[in-house]
Amino acid sequence: MDIHYTEEVSNALKENRAVVALESTIITHGMPYPDNLEMARSVEAIIRDNGAVPATIAVIEGKLHVGLNDDQAEWLAQQKGTMKLSRADLAFAMVRGATGGTTVAATMMAAQAAGIAVFATGGIGGVHRGAEESFDISADLDELGRTPVTVVSAGAKAILDIPKTMEALETRGVPVIAYGQDALPAFWSRDSGFTAPLRLDTASQIAEFMQMRTQQKVFGHGGILITNPVPQSSEIPYSEMATIITVAQNEADQKNVSGKAVTPWLLSRIVEISGGKSLETNIALVKNNADLAAKIAVAFSKLK
Amino acid sequence: MDIHYTEEVSNALKENRAVVALESTIITHGMPYPDNLEMARSVEAIIRDNGAVPATIAVIEGKLHVGLNDDQAEWLAQQKGTMKLSRADLAFAMVRGATGGTTVAATMMAAQAAGIAVFATGGIGGVHRGAEESFDISADLDELGRTPVTVVSAGAKAILDIPKTMEALETRGVPVIAYGQDALPAFWSRDSGFTAPLRLDTASQIAEFMQMRTQQKVFGHGGILITNPVPQSSEIPYSEMATIITVAQNEADQKNVSGKAVTPWLLSRIVEISGGKSLETNIALVKNNADLAAKIAVAFSKLK
Amino acid sequence: MDIHYTEEVSNALKENRAVVALESTIITHGMPYPDNLEMARSVEAIIRDNGAVPATIAVIEGKLHVGLNDDQAEWLAQQKGTMKLSRADLAFAMVRGATGGTTVAATMMAAQAAGIAVFATGGIGGVHRGAEESFDISADLDELGRTPVTVVSAGAKAILDIPKTMEALETRGVPVIAYGQDALPAFWSRDSGFTAPLRLDTASQIAEFMQMRTQQKVFGHGGILITNPVPQSSEIPYSEMATIITVAQNEADQKNVSGKAVTPWLLSRIVEISGGKSLETNIALVKNNADLAAKIAVAFSKLK
Ligand SMILES: [Mn+2]
Ligand SMILES: [Mn+2]
Ligand SMILES: [Mn+2]
Repeated sequence: MDIHYTEEVSNALKENRAVVALESTIITHGMPYPDNLEMARSVEAIIRDNGAVPATIAVIEGKLHVGLNDDQAEWLAQQKGTMKLSRADLAFAMVRGATGGTTVAATMMAAQAAGIAVFATGGIGGVHRGAEESFDISADLDELGRTPVTVVSAGAKAILDIPKTMEALETRGVPVIAYGQDALPAFWSRDSGFTAPLRLDTASQIAEFMQMRTQQKVFGHGGILITNPVPQSSEIPYSEMATIITVAQNEADQKNVSGKAVTPWLLSRIVEISGGKSLETNIALVKNNADLAAKIAVAFSKLK
Repeated sequence: MDIHYTEEVSNALKENRAVVALESTIITHGMPYPDNLEMARSVEAIIRDNGAVPATIAVIEGKLHVGLNDDQAEWLAQQKGTMKLSRADLAFAMVRGATGGTTVAATMMAAQAAGIAVFATGGIGGVHRGAEESFDISADLDELGRTPVTVVSAGAKAILDIPKTMEALETRGVPVIAYGQDALPAFWSRDSGFTAPLRLDTASQIAEFMQMRTQQKVFGHGGILITNPVPQSSEIPYSEMATIITVAQNEADQKNVSGKAVTPWLLSRIVEISGGKSLETNIALVKNNADLAAKIAVAFSKLK
Repeated sequence: MDIHYTEEVSNALKENRAVVALESTIITHGMPYPDNLEMARSVEAIIRDNGAVPATIAVIEGKLHVGLNDDQAEWLAQQKGTMKLSRADLAFAMVRGATGGTTVAATMMAAQAAGIAVFATGGIGGVHRGAEESFDISADLDELGRTPVTVVSAGAKAILDIPKTMEALETRGVPVIAYGQDALPAFWSRDSGFTAPLRLDTASQIAEFMQMRTQQKVFGHGGILITNPVPQSSEIPYSEMATIITVAQNEADQKNVSGKAVTPWLLSRIVEISGGKSLETNIALVKNNADLAAKIAVAFSKLK
């Protein structure tokens, strides 16, 4: 299978050094240029500062890249009309020569293929509100159920149905671990009001858990979901976010925003309603997750 | 594992020539004798005319057949009380010496075991209307999520809940490709009113996509669903079908038809309401799918 | 992978003799001490009386045990605050040095890893009532979909939504077999009012079905669910149980019992309402399942 590595990533993998995978829909669909590029670069810097190597994953003109060099990141950050690649269409983009950002599901697939055990993102997809009628459930959940990669997130995006998402993860046998607290985080907020099923307090503990799962590969273990609360200084408390989300959703309903348009519409409307604060929180949590993911990858590389 | 091949299929597989799998519930449960036999023979002829070898799959007195000779097809077409075999009961029929037609799920399993990459059918099973209460979701969807066979269909049977079926396929990471158009077909109709997630325009493009997925087997790719619109001359437009389906369903509700009886009852009532037209359309789309499947199998055999 | 066997189990596995796995949440969460220990011992005795070896599975201070000696069983039966381990947290308990009983899902995982083909329990988890809103679906169902172990049960616990559980098993391709009757049992009752999808009448027939599935491992078969009706002398008829369950559920609703607290609350309230009869039935059905599981394991060991 044909994966294009940067020399930095390729060398790190050969030498069993710490590598952290990064998704690229945050670049292609998350923010406008040049904010997206700046964000990507500062996230990569945080990973390097921790002694790990960042491996941003994307499909560029049909080639699957694990690690982007400066020119590639710059180029990708400026593309319009790129695909948003999940399990169903990753190979499709590759054979058609398309360019796309990878979601959590597709990034997990590429990370596993490349031998990268840890992956940092903002939040995972999950069960959408109203899924009891729409059946709209992200492919990220099935991927977590089958692909043995540790995903460091700030939880499920809080516009989703969090209790249903937690149930769906339990059904699929995915461990959900709150980092350093009992409460399950909710993306922009440190505390969703729900208790996380499991808790670990250090990067080393997480690495040891990963090692135990690796040793038990006969069990066919899938992914691990780490939910890492956004730093207190950057959080928007859940009570406040709940109101903002409700307002945004009511507007979406009134304007008949539907289907795949709902999530991006809500996320952008929430930025407006919060006066830009939700975007700051989003950036802070992504950086915070990159930091923890790098620490986990370093701890894990010492155990192997 | 004990598979019974016809010499024609066995030779074609050894020589890496194009083979198309066919399901057999269309013979055992889809139509009465001798219409079912005639249909099966004309479908096989279409595949041979395209330079591929047909491999009808069925369990006959406990033996799994991949390819039926004339006597076997004739015999199977006349059996009464045969099983309708899905993943859960394929091995059960084999150990008990039973006879059964294979659904999409069981045909995919046998095709994969035999090394056949392409399979032609009418329509796949999916999420039933009312599944938000009944949880009635076909095993075909899970099978598409895990078994790497390309299924050439005219979409999901339109008595199903098409939007929910599409969501369930996305969750499971199944690429859904409309052939030669943007619209998702809806079995008897060329246009369901929904846009298909992906589109390809030639058998070669589909074969290339299959090859890319085969090369990427590390990704654990499952099946590919091709949705091939019925020829215009034979279609019943969706607006017309929607009315017919609604009438049939209201009758089913009034008569308290429930459980596993609903689908066959609806399909047969729809034939009556449409004055036989829906059966003609059904036959036309199966032939059309066999034709496309054969062209894909031939293109794929040249790439290997 | 580090599994701790008793000498009895280890020898039996080496010599390809019949072994029956047993879960341990019945010990840690099902009954108080010393009833739980007494129950565990009598179940093990029934298995030995049939010429098979019992292998109770549990995690004790981080170690995965397949088979417990007398001291370990005695110790486990007296622990408080143990974990209830499913797929998501089995490895977590192991790395953290915790102690826990294994659910159906985790017991299946350990049985497969140990090479044990048959597992006896009371009832499996399934789709909870109200799951159309809560999405509360046991990980046991996904495990049955993927892990090739035969689970001998008295059906799904009848406080669950039985029709939805049956649909979910069909979607996942799990054969559900009623033993010796057409009706699907419903834990405390011999007849749920539904017909089981499949029926077998002897332990040998079940062993032959298992062998056929084993020979067809290319199909990626998961588990088999045997539903074994509780002996008539111990059953509570379904009409009676339905009333008791409804009363208990109404009380749970009035008292706002919710989330993970519902199932244990209902089970214990049902014991009270039935004047202790439901507990007797529960014990009788577990013993009855151990007996059948042992007979299946013996028959299967002769076929290998
Ligand atoms: Mn979706
Ligand atoms: Mn069904
Ligand atoms: Mn649950």
